[in-house]
Amino acid sequence: MAPSALLTDLYELTMLAGYFEQGMHQLPATFDLFFRELPFDGGYAVMAGLDPALEFLESLRFREDDLDYIESIGLFRGPFIAYLSSIRFKGTVTAVPEGTAVFPYEPILTVQGALAETQLVETALLNIVNFQTLIATKASRVVRAAAPAKVVEFGTRRAQGPDGAISATRAAAVGGVLTTSNLAAGKAFGLPVAGTQAHSWVMSFRTELEAFRAYATSFPDDCVLLVDTYDTLRSGIPNAITVAKELEAGGHKLSGVRLDSGDLAYLSRESRRLLDEAGLTHVKILASNELDEHVIQSIRSEGGLVDLYGVGTRLVTGAGQGGGALGGIYKLVEIDGKPKVKVSGDPSKGTIPGKKQLWRVIRPDGGFEMDVIGLEGETIGPGAQVFDPSHPLRHAPIPGDTRLEDLRTVVMDRGSRVLSPAALPALAKRTATELRSLPEGSLRLMNPHRYRVSLSPKLHELRLRLIEEARAG
Amino acid sequence: MAPSALLTDLYELTMLAGYFEQGMHQLPATFDLFFRELPFDGGYAVMAGLDPALEFLESLRFREDDLDYIESIGLFRGPFIAYLSSIRFKGTVTAVPEGTAVFPYEPILTVQGALAETQLVETALLNIVNFQTLIATKASRVVRAAAPAKVVEFGTRRAQGPDGAISATRAAAVGGVLTTSNLAAGKAFGLPVAGTQAHSWVMSFRTELEAFRAYATSFPDDCVLLVDTYDTLRSGIPNAITVAKELEAGGHKLSGVRLDSGDLAYLSRESRRLLDEAGLTHVKILASNELDEHVIQSIRSEGGLVDLYGVGTRLVTGAGQGGGALGGIYKLVEIDGKPKVKVSGDPSKGTIPGKKQLWRVIRPDGGFEMDVIGLEGETIGPGAQVFDPSHPLRHAPIPGDTRLEDLRTVVMDRGSRVLSPAALPALAKRTATELRSLPEGSLRLMNPHRYRVSLSPKLHELRLRLIEEARAG
Repeated sequence: MAPSALLTDLYELTMLAGYFEQGMHQLPATFDLFFRELPFDGGYAVMAGLDPALEFLESLRFREDDLDYIESIGLFRGPFIAYLSSIRFKGTVTAVPEGTAVFPYEPILTVQGALAETQLVETALLNIVNFQTLIATKASRVVRAAAPAKVVEFGTRRAQGPDGAISATRAAAVGGVLTTSNLAAGKAFGLPVAGTQAHSWVMSFRTELEAFRAYATSFPDDCVLLVDTYDTLRSGIPNAITVAKELEAGGHKLSGVRLDSGDLAYLSRESRRLLDEAGLTHVKILASNELDEHVIQSIRSEGGLVDLYGVGTRLVTGAGQGGGALGGIYKLVEIDGKPKVKVSGDPSKGTIPGKKQLWRVIRPDGGFEMDVIGLEGETIGPGAQVFDPSHPLRHAPIPGDTRLEDLRTVVMDRGSRVLSPAALPALAKRTATELRSLPEGSLRLMNPHRYRVSLSPKLHELRLRLIEEARAG
Repeated sequence: MAPSALLTDLYELTMLAGYFEQGMHQLPATFDLFFRELPFDGGYAVMAGLDPALEFLESLRFREDDLDYIESIGLFRGPFIAYLSSIRFKGTVTAVPEGTAVFPYEPILTVQGALAETQLVETALLNIVNFQTLIATKASRVVRAAAPAKVVEFGTRRAQGPDGAISATRAAAVGGVLTTSNLAAGKAFGLPVAGTQAHSWVMSFRTELEAFRAYATSFPDDCVLLVDTYDTLRSGIPNAITVAKELEAGGHKLSGVRLDSGDLAYLSRESRRLLDEAGLTHVKILASNELDEHVIQSIRSEGGLVDLYGVGTRLVTGAGQGGGALGGIYKLVEIDGKPKVKVSGDPSKGTIPGKKQLWRVIRPDGGFEMDVIGLEGETIGPGAQVFDPSHPLRHAPIPGDTRLEDLRTVVMDRGSRVLSPAALPALAKRTATELRSLPEGSLRLMNPHRYRVSLSPKLHELRLRLIEEARAG
């Protein structure tokens, strides 16, 4: 279910009231959604949240009780409230597909339409795209650290609220984590679900062996046993082996064991050895306990033998992102046909003006060379000089043997959705393909290669001119 | 609206199926919800989320389409699914009120009832209480750093999903941030809402002065002007002063100015000076931009003159909590009348067994001396020896001039809610009173005093005995 139209900041409504009372609410306006810094000190981000964002835009309307509430605030006049009751989103949205590798300053989503409508949707679009892009990016990092081992998401209990869990599961799937423990998300998105038992299960029986036997009776073909309640190597694994043998006698196979505490590198190696010695080479080892891409990498570098990583808290909250969120912003870049720039005292807070295009420069081998942001209607190709957005004097040509691909498409045309919802496995596949095409150093977890994003000649020129005008004026 | 019963991990259902098929699902069981570490390296946490948790329990049921979905997973047999369709929560919940200062190992919420029901609700209870307690704690830190200046929450655009924003706003209110920009939360919880305009408003007009005038026309009595779009001190404040004078001529007063970038300590001092020199001492200064308790403290220590802090991202995501979440857990402590303990290889992951009481030891001046966790039915008083939970040999008497207060009450009795929902301002007030009663060093933002939590003699003895038995057995 799409969020309510009230998922917005009061200031969107005070601005709308002002525009309405100034007769400006129908002026044509363009807003870009972009971020200025990559999350996790990484080398890329993975676009996500587009489909839920479009769902929000499509269903946007203030219901009677919303309007009553807005009236009760005591700030707004009758004609404006009547206008609000008629608002629908009739704008046009251009965006990169979910699962695309994206970079700072790129207009990953652009909204064009009447000033009032395009302004109103700022808060919800940022909420949805900021969070899902953060989590899809995190998930892609975890998946790469674990590969070829698989990853299961089970962060629901530590997610940021009920929907924080469901949104996170969706975004994690875009990033490549396609299995979850969360039934609400499994149902909503058709994702496979996974899960075994808690320590409370084991503690509810007189002995660990009885607990394992009982579980195997109910799930003889899907039996994963939690082996660390008492003593993993001296009790958990031996009892699991006993139950595996009993299952085999009945024509079934133990699926796996789960380690949830202690030194996972050591315990997984030793568990593997004990299982293999018992002829149970098919039994998988699942590891969990405050994992993330860095912990998984260190388990692997120490020879851990894990077939499946269960990743919870740090995945669904995007832990490791210092500020707590992707800092995506939504900025006015053109109004009434005039491009706009924000010239802040803080230069890192400036904007790039105008209606834009976004190209990816692709090498003959399919690898991504760089991205270029240009002006609407502009045509450029290999050989063109392009400019560093953070330094007006730094420029270089687009290499001669490359081709340019438009990264964005119109996904909503004057309020009507053009893009139909994509299946999550397809988006996960796109993410994987994109990441394989990046310069290798871009994928490094720490101190990655900085992928190049440039401005086209005309956009560079427009930006400099508007900054000059703002300074003069 | 309470979350769906499907807001649960698959393993809760596989365990339930196992208990059902073993005929154990009706065994009486007790689970404690607690955490092991204080968030933000702080000296306390603020309990929150109880009311939404009870709402979830009250409305818990699997709908037809939920049951169809569960069946479609292919793991569960017909009789179990029929049983699930009849499940309602009929357990008893004992908890500390929201707004209470709470500490590691304390059973802040205890659920007693049939094993199946008490196990099933684990995921959702943790989701709700973990997140809200984290954010209420963060909010209380921000409020204290800002006091006597007030705080407004406006994190919706960076919150973790749509409901992440709404849940966070509620929890922030428990912690003391009672004003929000989020209309959905304002409507849901009856909180006052606040907001002014974005940079896009200022950029939509030919000049900053025109933008300010237009806003003042629509909101002559609620006019806060964003002064940093071009140049705060040379353009924003002078233009705001012009508009303030024009408002005065019409019998109105400018409410405030908002600084959203740059050196907020310096800019607020200079803005104050310019406003005061213009006779506008009543105009308030609002500051925002990636604030949290630490940044606010440094602005104040540098003589910043801010009347109102707008805090967003870092408040609603609980930024600064390393792991990304409060690590609350839900552990079986008694089943079928038998107390249970988890003895982990990792000693920090052990549990405290049995049905419990939780007392606060209060000094004659009303200050909090320590908390004591005891066994159900146990009576202790001043003079009793109490034990350090992390060190069996460390103990000390409860001081003689104190009194013990039961911190918890029954909030739900065999499925029926006893506690009616509290108004958020009352909970915020409780938080403030609690924090005032803690030892002063407990409130320090960094390296705080460690408030003492002890075990009663009988609980200490039970725990040692069960650990011994587990080791022997």
